[in-house]
Amino acid sequence: MIIILRENATEAQVDHVVKRVETLGFQAHLSKGTYRTVIGVIGDEEKLLAAPLAAIPGVAKVVPVMPAFKLASREAHPQPTVVDVAGTKIGGGHLGMIAGPCAVESEERMNDIAAAIKAAGANLLRGGAYKPRTSPYAFQGLGEEGLKILRRVGDAHGLPVVTEAVDPRHVELVAEYADMIQLGARNMQNFVLLTEVGKTHKPVLLKRGMAATVKDLMMSAEYVVAQGTTDVVLCERGVKGFDNACRNMLDIAAVPQIQQISHLPVIVDPSHATGRPELIPACALAAVAAGADGVHIEVHNCPEEAMSDGPQALLPEQYAEVMGQMKKVAAAVGKTW
Amino acid sequence: MIIILRENATEAQVDHVVKRVETLGFQAHLSKGTYRTVIGVIGDEEKLLAAPLAAIPGVAKVVPVMPAFKLASREAHPQPTVVDVAGTKIGGGHLGMIAGPCAVESEERMNDIAAAIKAAGANLLRGGAYKPRTSPYAFQGLGEEGLKILRRVGDAHGLPVVTEAVDPRHVELVAEYADMIQLGARNMQNFVLLTEVGKTHKPVLLKRGMAATVKDLMMSAEYVVAQGTTDVVLCERGVKGFDNACRNMLDIAAVPQIQQISHLPVIVDPSHATGRPELIPACALAAVAAGADGVHIEVHNCPEEAMSDGPQALLPEQYAEVMGQMKKVAAAVGKTW
Amino acid sequence: MIIILRENATEAQVDHVVKRVETLGFQAHLSKGTYRTVIGVIGDEEKLLAAPLAAIPGVAKVVPVMPAFKLASREAHPQPTVVDVAGTKIGGGHLGMIAGPCAVESEERMNDIAAAIKAAGANLLRGGAYKPRTSPYAFQGLGEEGLKILRRVGDAHGLPVVTEAVDPRHVELVAEYADMIQLGARNMQNFVLLTEVGKTHKPVLLKRGMAATVKDLMMSAEYVVAQGTTDVVLCERGVKGFDNACRNMLDIAAVPQIQQISHLPVIVDPSHATGRPELIPACALAAVAAGADGVHIEVHNCPEEAMSDGPQALLPEQYAEVMGQMKKVAAAVGKTW
Amino acid sequence: MIIILRENATEAQVDHVVKRVETLGFQAHLSKGTYRTVIGVIGDEEKLLAAPLAAIPGVAKVVPVMPAFKLASREAHPQPTVVDVAGTKIGGGHLGMIAGPCAVESEERMNDIAAAIKAAGANLLRGGAYKPRTSPYAFQGLGEEGLKILRRVGDAHGLPVVTEAVDPRHVELVAEYADMIQLGARNMQNFVLLTEVGKTHKPVLLKRGMAATVKDLMMSAEYVVAQGTTDVVLCERGVKGFDNACRNMLDIAAVPQIQQISHLPVIVDPSHATGRPELIPACALAAVAAGADGVHIEVHNCPEEAMSDGPQALLPEQYAEVMGQMKKVAAAVGKTW
Repeated sequence: MIIILRENATEAQVDHVVKRVETLGFQAHLSKGTYRTVIGVIGDEEKLLAAPLAAIPGVAKVVPVMPAFKLASREAHPQPTVVDVAGTKIGGGHLGMIAGPCAVESEERMNDIAAAIKAAGANLLRGGAYKPRTSPYAFQGLGEEGLKILRRVGDAHGLPVVTEAVDPRHVELVAEYADMIQLGARNMQNFVLLTEVGKTHKPVLLKRGMAATVKDLMMSAEYVVAQGTTDVVLCERGVKGFDNACRNMLDIAAVPQIQQISHLPVIVDPSHATGRPELIPACALAAVAAGADGVHIEVHNCPEEAMSDGPQALLPEQYAEVMGQMKKVAAAVGKTW
Repeated sequence: MIIILRENATEAQVDHVVKRVETLGFQAHLSKGTYRTVIGVIGDEEKLLAAPLAAIPGVAKVVPVMPAFKLASREAHPQPTVVDVAGTKIGGGHLGMIAGPCAVESEERMNDIAAAIKAAGANLLRGGAYKPRTSPYAFQGLGEEGLKILRRVGDAHGLPVVTEAVDPRHVELVAEYADMIQLGARNMQNFVLLTEVGKTHKPVLLKRGMAATVKDLMMSAEYVVAQGTTDVVLCERGVKGFDNACRNMLDIAAVPQIQQISHLPVIVDPSHATGRPELIPACALAAVAAGADGVHIEVHNCPEEAMSDGPQALLPEQYAEVMGQMKKVAAAVGKTW
Repeated sequence: MIIILRENATEAQVDHVVKRVETLGFQAHLSKGTYRTVIGVIGDEEKLLAAPLAAIPGVAKVVPVMPAFKLASREAHPQPTVVDVAGTKIGGGHLGMIAGPCAVESEERMNDIAAAIKAAGANLLRGGAYKPRTSPYAFQGLGEEGLKILRRVGDAHGLPVVTEAVDPRHVELVAEYADMIQLGARNMQNFVLLTEVGKTHKPVLLKRGMAATVKDLMMSAEYVVAQGTTDVVLCERGVKGFDNACRNMLDIAAVPQIQQISHLPVIVDPSHATGRPELIPACALAAVAAGADGVHIEVHNCPEEAMSDGPQALLPEQYAEVMGQMKKVAAAVGKTW
Repeated sequence: MIIILRENATEAQVDHVVKRVETLGFQAHLSKGTYRTVIGVIGDEEKLLAAPLAAIPGVAKVVPVMPAFKLASREAHPQPTVVDVAGTKIGGGHLGMIAGPCAVESEERMNDIAAAIKAAGANLLRGGAYKPRTSPYAFQGLGEEGLKILRRVGDAHGLPVVTEAVDPRHVELVAEYADMIQLGARNMQNFVLLTEVGKTHKPVLLKRGMAATVKDLMMSAEYVVAQGTTDVVLCERGVKGFDNACRNMLDIAAVPQIQQISHLPVIVDPSHATGRPELIPACALAAVAAGADGVHIEVHNCPEEAMSDGPQALLPEQYAEVMGQMKKVAAAVGKTW
């Protein structure tokens, strides 16, 4: 950690900072520049994070030099983690191809969609039983009934299943039915939920929040990993941008960024990132080329009747087509699924 | 609701949309322009929101004409709501002046701070017992012990108290001690928590999420109000901006915007909005002048020892000074507290 | 164009709007909904844009239904435009692979870099002679001397050259030496410069501004195209985002968006988009996979001595490597260069 | 300047950085921490900015400690600058109250508006003769004829006039007629124009670009000040935000930020910041309370006929009302005009 003092910091202020650093059990290393004094702090930075050094009079800025996430960092674990979701591998060259409707609506519909995505090559089935909806008047999911349908349909088609948990009181229930538990974008900093889900030691799909930096996402992953599991797959799904022509802005550069600072796999969700089916194929191909460890796409066989997020779903035949294209791009970058 | 068709929409597609609208129980009103066909939908728009009309082939855009929030809207309730928090009124010309440390740390410290803010004119005491922290390794609050301290200190100084709930399983407990329950920015779209807190019928302080539009904030307020209470105070506390010189960007225009579309009071939190004590006074004055129904400021008597958010707290004497200035600006715009 | 009236609009206000629309030479088509009145305006929307209908009392919102850019739109020109830059084709399946240093620094250095990128397969050489720099104290380019060096080096290696114009008074001079004129991000809405460059009828490389929506970019392209040329290549180079871990945020979805609404080719510049060499290869591959018509990469043989933007340049050997990878991805999506 | 090395930087890399710093004429001050090595660079940082130290292998990050703008900084000039625009003072407790239509449309209209704003207490008249418009088909201003009208009307009403320059070739012409030259948001980084306008030594109104950080704005001010004038007034006019309910997002915290780092006055333009007349009064009051050195408001006597930006203009009677309110708030914060 580096502490940069204000230009007009007095000697007494500098002394106070040095004393404070030493009181906290660290060494202070003073360096007087032409304009300013800088103090290098030597010791375990982790422990210093709790100390609000920036609040000391005379301090202009505190610059950490270590990542604040530890267990999720590449430094802690140089090899890429491969997450195994009931047989489907994600990471280390294996692509997790997740597809399905936004919400579980009925067993019949779920069956039809599962058959279609399986035929197209998907290796993980998604479907929400608990839906976090912006409006209190919108469809909120089928609850446990939805979980049961998802489980039966997944088993029938040989597809592991992923579904979202939104309430710490339901996490155990969700864990009973799901092979992988999703933590949604709106809950990325619901630390209570993160902790509860982490405790199940089930594979987790952690979606990036709409205003979360890559570092924020890593800190949330750290919450899960700190519960004793490294089976965490991160998901870039678009962040808030100023151009409202798209629902969100896909931050494709987050993929190589995450892979450089973390050992956890990272996939891309072009459905939520764009909200526009006609843009999904190009973004899905971009994700694979950029090195993503998988792609998450919403598929529905009758979008106009979908109970949630219909306008952004691909039709099964559109999904099959983009899967064919992704296969080729994956081969070009030395990956497969 | 208005449905704008694509330029190349076929007659069959137009017919399909019209039929679909009618099947859902609405009237369709066709209008053929020079370039495009537009369909006006007549009926209760609320019910239409669930129907993904944008997913129908040939549809270019769906434009709602009604606000999607109802109970929280100005249309539903033309007079401004005045929220009474154990005697402190917020709204309708009454300013809620909330102050206190980020977290409850100890009874002694809390007592000192409460005495200081009371002397400066604050009418509501804040302090977190459960802290949502970005890092799993940071101080997470004292829990129930913190609630007890807050309650005792509030009572001792005649200040109603507001504290945050972060877990639906603790809402009842928090409601036992608090006069007002805070829903934090990171939980603004934690709909499970919103609902649980709404059920207590306690006054609520709902903070705007970092990537939430004003409309998103209203939708979250609607979740609470839908539980049968209008005692909801909204809080603008800065949103994500591209200029990282500040922690967030204070969206001061949100104040008049909210007051025009909603009857709920809205206050401003310049502490989280800026994250920099030297910018707080100017932003606090701006808030009062812009018509905010209150100002929320973090105050700590030893920021460098604060266990959370120390660098952004004002000292008691700084708080007293800005309170004096706010008094004058409040008088200039015909308000008081 | 659709005019949505306020809920409480009076009959007199509605009449006034209708009359105003008719005075301007258009037909007004009234549609009374359950809550609001909507007026469809029939006629050439283009001409209506100048009339501030939103300013009329009682009007809530004006929704245009046609793109405001005409000559640059896909409707005006359904086939993709192929821009020919002195023999290098961009668009319609042909990729423009632009590379070179940020600034022309010396003939020797330029020669070395040109030889390297040519060997790696680049088909267009870039280099700035006039540099728009954030600081008035930074190197501003060699001016005409830089143009001469660029021309000679391009000719020596059989590479067409692209360079930026920043001053309307120098456009003619730049046009004498360059095969393609770049309009930089900071000048995307310098309409005087756009017009001046358009008049030369030289191929143009128009970079997206940091706060420009895709529609804003199209409007700026329209300025150039309105001067009588369709030889305009658009360039996505990252926009302002809230995560300052990268210099900008690459908006990869802009590529398919532009291709759907415009006939002009669009390329991607991962160098400026990320500002971090280690992220450039992944983003370059993503660009090709997403369907971009080319990729623009800054290359320097000694970044630490570069007079501008050194930290974001690839070394020649890094460029050669990513070119090899792009070749494979391009083949996977049926393109070549 | 502080250079933070990567955790895995080799001794050879550290040595190379040190040597490079010394070659450039500076002292390097090494500090080996628990995890990383940090190098403090001692000497005139200004000169170092051109050297791309971040490009050296092994370097993780370069942290400047001095502001990159010098002449515009508070350090260079501790007292606030008061800009005198033909008798109207801006800064140091004096408020510049600028009003007028977006564009000069006709002498009669200009006269009517000038009379109204003068009566309301404005002390500076604005009106554009050259308009930078997003669409090439929109009204681009009356040119020199507009300048003449503005001059005559300003003289008739005893109001100094401010108008925008958009083309370096017209700067001299604009300087002949104007008392203050505006540099618009879209041209904030048109460095050629900044320099040309700076050379006239006329008072300048420099508007913040839509994606410009406060530091970017200061760097652009430095371009003007470097031409030998400190008569530069900065203008916060809203930046790009993700909530498109408003045209832009007013960054009210920019006001105290600028006043702390610079001696130049800063005013606020709530018209462009919001684009919605009903939000302008609240934002104007906020600006005065926040300590702005003036307020810029667009006023038009018939917004529905305005040739540019009509929907965001206040009517003269609305302007008079908000001026009355601002007078009271200004008095509350000890200012006047």
